[in-house]
Amino acid sequence: MADRRPARAGALRDAITTAHIDALVITSLPNVRYLTGFSGSSALLLVTQRDLHLITDFRYDTQVRDEVGDLAKVRIEAQSLWTGLWNLAAGLTGIEVVGFESAHLLHRDFQRLLAEGTRWQWRPQINLVEALRESKDADEVALIRHAGEIAIRALTKTIKEIRPGLTELNVAGILEHSLRDEGSEEFPFSAIVASGPRAALPHARASSRVIERGDLLLLDFGAQYKGYCSDITRTMVIGPASGEQREIYEIVKHANAVASKSVRAGMKGQDADGLARRYIEERGYGDAFGHSLGHGLGLEVHEAPRLAKTVETLLGKGAVVTIEPGIYRPGWGGVRIEDDVHLAASGPEILTDFTRELLEVA
Amino acid sequence: MADRRPARAGALRDAITTAHIDALVITSLPNVRYLTGFSGSSALLLVTQRDLHLITDFRYDTQVRDEVGDLAKVRIEAQSLWTGLWNLAAGLTGIEVVGFESAHLLHRDFQRLLAEGTRWQWRPQINLVEALRESKDADEVALIRHAGEIAIRALTKTIKEIRPGLTELNVAGILEHSLRDEGSEEFPFSAIVASGPRAALPHARASSRVIERGDLLLLDFGAQYKGYCSDITRTMVIGPASGEQREIYEIVKHANAVASKSVRAGMKGQDADGLARRYIEERGYGDAFGHSLGHGLGLEVHEAPRLAKTVETLLGKGAVVTIEPGIYRPGWGGVRIEDDVHLAASGPEILTDFTRELLEVA
Repeated sequence: MADRRPARAGALRDAITTAHIDALVITSLPNVRYLTGFSGSSALLLVTQRDLHLITDFRYDTQVRDEVGDLAKVRIEAQSLWTGLWNLAAGLTGIEVVGFESAHLLHRDFQRLLAEGTRWQWRPQINLVEALRESKDADEVALIRHAGEIAIRALTKTIKEIRPGLTELNVAGILEHSLRDEGSEEFPFSAIVASGPRAALPHARASSRVIERGDLLLLDFGAQYKGYCSDITRTMVIGPASGEQREIYEIVKHANAVASKSVRAGMKGQDADGLARRYIEERGYGDAFGHSLGHGLGLEVHEAPRLAKTVETLLGKGAVVTIEPGIYRPGWGGVRIEDDVHLAASGPEILTDFTRELLEVA
Repeated sequence: MADRRPARAGALRDAITTAHIDALVITSLPNVRYLTGFSGSSALLLVTQRDLHLITDFRYDTQVRDEVGDLAKVRIEAQSLWTGLWNLAAGLTGIEVVGFESAHLLHRDFQRLLAEGTRWQWRPQINLVEALRESKDADEVALIRHAGEIAIRALTKTIKEIRPGLTELNVAGILEHSLRDEGSEEFPFSAIVASGPRAALPHARASSRVIERGDLLLLDFGAQYKGYCSDITRTMVIGPASGEQREIYEIVKHANAVASKSVRAGMKGQDADGLARRYIEERGYGDAFGHSLGHGLGLEVHEAPRLAKTVETLLGKGAVVTIEPGIYRPGWGGVRIEDDVHLAASGPEILTDFTRELLEVA
């Protein structure tokens, strides 16, 4: 792969110029990773028109040099990262007005900027790096697709082992074990394993509930590969499906298919959401689809753009988004089918190729 | 168990009075859980002298009522939680000066307080709830112990399956699967599985490195039970240990034992750190113990107090802390042995009862 990092830094420098600031302090770790490749859990990055200055702590001494090379000037700080920044600031000239990431800086650290960073004037900034991250390049799409393939292989293995009598926690264990064996380096979020009436809770985690014949079973999980995330949901039935389960499943399946086929870069977030919502409403289940259609994903499992009723922003060219319509009925259960879709210039490209037919397992 | 929540709210109200504020807005989710029992991922809590007002979104409509009961006045908000807070504020009288959690509020949301929360005057606060959380009651200690037992049973199972030829990711999969089967509801942090020279990286995650005979293998992981975390590290050798591996292991083992036996509530954080550090220094490995001795744990895997060289604060009565000395040599590997210790009035009580002898596995 070509090294995309210099081009990313160049694009950010243009944004810095447009924002009328001399430099930007980056505190979001995914933003640091995007710009430098550094994957550690402790970092501050100062981007000037001339250099990238990366500050981390002694634990990452070896790793930071491996990952970053000579792309950035690295400082290993024994005290706090902020002390490192003030030491750095003392040696830099020509910098007066510095931006910080308002959405990624705690109030406590903001007070620190005002109290200790007195050499510079501070300006809050929003989304300078995130706006660049929304449009994925070919390498990023390939990594998300790879993370999707890990998730799909793990799901294939897991489905073979699901049977009545296991708890949701047991199923989560099988799924996570399979994800690791297939190469997932982290879990982008805690797996949702929701059975029976618990499938009606869109944000259930796994519990000690025992899975029974006749249950709906909803699995929502992801894999991570070289920092990039996938996010997929499938809903199945334990044993033969009832007519009602099948009827609702087919509505969600159709809503997923319509939206995955029709979603495009340049569409408003609310119009993308409407692609699935309109159909579910027409079938009389509008009130039972209580969340938004989807979200961007990449280095984070939730990032720009948002596909939701209230969002007038346009979906960015090359974004990768989830399409995840659902129908939830308290006490009965729920169905959600979620795929990851790349908004390519030629149209939507589904990255999670796993059957959307209703599976009757065990 | 007795319901401890009313007493916690009472203690917080005393702290609110002392801070000369009329109410406190809580944005830290573990703090919300501590005070109300609510475990969802979206919440704002307003604590006044009269009531607890909990705001969450529609996804948690059922769950919040189950978990909170009539302890708090619950509002389900269709828009944003902040809109919910302003709607609530409009109906409250006698509140003028309101605190917010400076360490748990993003600058972006702080700007929101100033722009939209104009009915109230705002005062940053630090650690009002965290200070209460540092001292664990008997129920909390029992839950951490239970989380420790889950971790130990999972480790026992995992050790039986470790053999040369597995990757670190395979071992992480076995370990996480076992944690789920033993009832861990989440993973408090991403497991560290570091073998061979990678054991020298105190914050390595699991990689695709193949484990070989003669390797040191370091496992650092935790379990979670009813919200409470455990955190344990053991280091073993794949096959027979070399003299050098054994020598360094015994130093770390002794440092762990000395500190676990001697740590007390009321000690300065730096003096606790010194219990292990002094011995490691005497043995000539001071430079190779590059991190601090430990940290508190409870609803979060890192919380107050800190056991570190620079910390002059006293360890709180009833705190639960990790004791995790280590020796790391780049290129060679590392050894860390970590336990969870309750600082009871009668002295330290180790909650993670698993052998500290050097295990030669496979």
